[in-house]
Amino acid sequence: MSDAGSKPAGRLRRAPEHFVDDSLAGDIVRDGLTPTRRRFLQRSFAAASTALAAGIAGRASAAPAGASEPAGDPMILQPRPWATSLGQPVAARPYGEPSRFEANLQRRQSPGLTQTKAASVAFTPLQGLFGIITPSGLHFERHHQGWQDIDPDQHRLMVHGLVRAPKVYTMDDVMRLPSVSRMHFIECGANTGMEWGNAAVPTVQYTHGMLSCCEFTGVPLSVLLDDVGADLKRGRFVLAEGGDGSGMTRTIPMEAALSDVLVAWGMNGEMLRPENGYPLRLVVPGVQGVSWVKWLRRIKVGDAPWNSKDETSHYVDLMPDGQHRQYTSIQECKSVITSPSGGQALLDRGYFNITGLAWSGRGPIRQVDVSVDGGRNWRTARLESPVLPKCLTRFNVDWQWDGSPALLQSRAIDETGFVQPRYRQLRAVRGGRSIYHNNAIQTWQVAESGEVSNVHVD
Amino acid sequence: MSDAGSKPAGRLRRAPEHFVDDSLAGDIVRDGLTPTRRRFLQRSFAAASTALAAGIAGRASAAPAGASEPAGDPMILQPRPWATSLGQPVAARPYGEPSRFEANLQRRQSPGLTQTKAASVAFTPLQGLFGIITPSGLHFERHHQGWQDIDPDQHRLMVHGLVRAPKVYTMDDVMRLPSVSRMHFIECGANTGMEWGNAAVPTVQYTHGMLSCCEFTGVPLSVLLDDVGADLKRGRFVLAEGGDGSGMTRTIPMEAALSDVLVAWGMNGEMLRPENGYPLRLVVPGVQGVSWVKWLRRIKVGDAPWNSKDETSHYVDLMPDGQHRQYTSIQECKSVITSPSGGQALLDRGYFNITGLAWSGRGPIRQVDVSVDGGRNWRTARLESPVLPKCLTRFNVDWQWDGSPALLQSRAIDETGFVQPRYRQLRAVRGGRSIYHNNAIQTWQVAESGEVSNVHVD
Repeated sequence: MSDAGSKPAGRLRRAPEHFVDDSLAGDIVRDGLTPTRRRFLQRSFAAASTALAAGIAGRASAAPAGASEPAGDPMILQPRPWATSLGQPVAARPYGEPSRFEANLQRRQSPGLTQTKAASVAFTPLQGLFGIITPSGLHFERHHQGWQDIDPDQHRLMVHGLVRAPKVYTMDDVMRLPSVSRMHFIECGANTGMEWGNAAVPTVQYTHGMLSCCEFTGVPLSVLLDDVGADLKRGRFVLAEGGDGSGMTRTIPMEAALSDVLVAWGMNGEMLRPENGYPLRLVVPGVQGVSWVKWLRRIKVGDAPWNSKDETSHYVDLMPDGQHRQYTSIQECKSVITSPSGGQALLDRGYFNITGLAWSGRGPIRQVDVSVDGGRNWRTARLESPVLPKCLTRFNVDWQWDGSPALLQSRAIDETGFVQPRYRQLRAVRGGRSIYHNNAIQTWQVAESGEVSNVHVD
Repeated sequence: MSDAGSKPAGRLRRAPEHFVDDSLAGDIVRDGLTPTRRRFLQRSFAAASTALAAGIAGRASAAPAGASEPAGDPMILQPRPWATSLGQPVAARPYGEPSRFEANLQRRQSPGLTQTKAASVAFTPLQGLFGIITPSGLHFERHHQGWQDIDPDQHRLMVHGLVRAPKVYTMDDVMRLPSVSRMHFIECGANTGMEWGNAAVPTVQYTHGMLSCCEFTGVPLSVLLDDVGADLKRGRFVLAEGGDGSGMTRTIPMEAALSDVLVAWGMNGEMLRPENGYPLRLVVPGVQGVSWVKWLRRIKVGDAPWNSKDETSHYVDLMPDGQHRQYTSIQECKSVITSPSGGQALLDRGYFNITGLAWSGRGPIRQVDVSVDGGRNWRTARLESPVLPKCLTRFNVDWQWDGSPALLQSRAIDETGFVQPRYRQLRAVRGGRSIYHNNAIQTWQVAESGEVSNVHVD
């Protein structure tokens, strides 16, 4: 009989989490892979033998009556414990959790990235995710003075400034207003920042994991501005202020404020998580995450940008001529292959589904191309629907790996025709001293051993 | 100064969970509402005074420099504890959880509905959800012998029967195949079943909560059938068998199997939850949940339906002529208002956003109408994008409540032109002895007191 279990498989999903260790993030590829691959190979063969034995042992009685049995219908699986025991009751967990076998799929801090964990980052494990929705429990974290779990009955939103009737809103007031739900990506302006310096961090979780995508629900900011009678002649900018200790303040141009910006309470169908701004945050589609002010407590209408700390000393781009570029907040067209990706291992030749994510702050993705030879030849990837504006788009390409070294790249093109740049193209404009807004093409190197690592290709 | 906080608000989101008590589900509206409303009113006024005081106390220094201060810019909020303390570090929770203030938003068992909790239902709290995505932790549960947390390394999927090369797949084998991600609703065929007998259970969680909607990722069943060389001449049906103790088996017509059926491992971006079939389940878009076989262990190709237990003694419709209607598995066009809904309370007159969900097993939703007078007059609701086939669609309608009694109804129309029926229309065809497949129009009664309850309108 044929038994697909008898060949060791790609183990692409779990590989990274199994050996990622925050204490030595820099070395996890080299140190982690060999033992891991051995373990996986052993597992696969053991499993195969089990299945084989099961096939021989059989229990034909388990086959339901009905359709005629084709000659030599061979394989009835051996009963497993979970097939012969009473399971857990409903509502055993009134709010469910992942399987105990998924415990290694976590958001993780990058060791040494920041001085304190209260002003740091925890990255989303993109290598282990599917589709476009990021599970709320794995949404990336970026805090400036830690996260708070604010009592919604005590929380207030003030809207004032150049308005006719300033107001203080309770959560009940805000949640009664007309609401909309939309799916959007959120990306930190510093995402992929470590790659500017060729740090070559080991996994896609650390290179691109300040990226998430959720369905957000809230009231359009335009509705609130109308409710307080904002002066749209003099009021050309809006200030958003967070309620946490960092007092995060960001300037939003009025055109954006009146278009698709939301004052949101909902994320993936439920209330925002505390780490993501519960009970109220700003959603600024297409714009870097720092402007999506969390624990939103104040909206002010003004006639000039505020030039706050996080608009002048941070989130600016140091250009080749030594000038700082300010307010470059839109996240340009970008993509990354999430599997196979750094830290994973192809354990045999043959078919693999190359998959990844593409996004643009300027609208929907039009096309994604994939190369397996470092950008010499490109194939157009299959985009999964829905393809939504300012939202992640999942792409897939079939690949037969022949066992020779490969350089995997993806290149996204958005509706405006913008083509994701190579590093040399990006550096020609931006120089080499930037921290933020790196949307260059990412390269994953596949070695003959099957090990996948992060390499820089200009 | 104007202070929106000074008027008590709808309290629509939290109301039900606050007083739902599984021990007396039948009476929770009558018993629960009065004290609840009093508590909410008190809260709102207290909160309002706080805000007022805060406004007077002020702390002008908190206003960032920059835009000119309009004359009499009045309100700077008093600092709250969370604005003056260091928050929690990143990755404090490597896998995040909801706020402690959302603990009452749970999936809940309906007391007395079944003999044992291992073969029972836990309902999704639709009254507290937004958009179309159901948080995985609140996905409804329907088990026949409890749920199991199966070791994916030990799990196998066998595909056999009328095939050229039967195979046993490991999870690695399955997850290497070409995959797709799609958003679909899943509804138990027995959803709203209690309403056939005018049980008038108190909340939408119990009337319609065997309904969820997620992004599912998996391999098309057609790919697996091709991989084993299924005989598509003689093989006109497919059997799906679950790996749990209930040995759930369902027949799928080959046309469906070859169209949009998935063998899925992903749900909302991560692996399936144990309660939902981890590590592998069938996804049969538009078809009742029982066919979405969980803990999927076997696919068999045959030339006739299997007429298994759950196709003959359960999930059948007893028609007026005494005959049982079998294999009526497609979930017809249906909708329900989730807010305002039973158990909630409107605490004052004025604007409310009537919102709900619509879905059809035959394709996308074309239109949803809403009535506030028991079906005499209808207004077309605003549908939120994306509107996807065999997926939940969120609708909204603006409503000014004048304080008089109202009967809220929603009526969905799908792409085929099918119009969701009233009870008298459904009963004219189906009689009164059915348990399954109730897609009649739901009515919520709003009393002058603002209390919302479940009533039957033919």
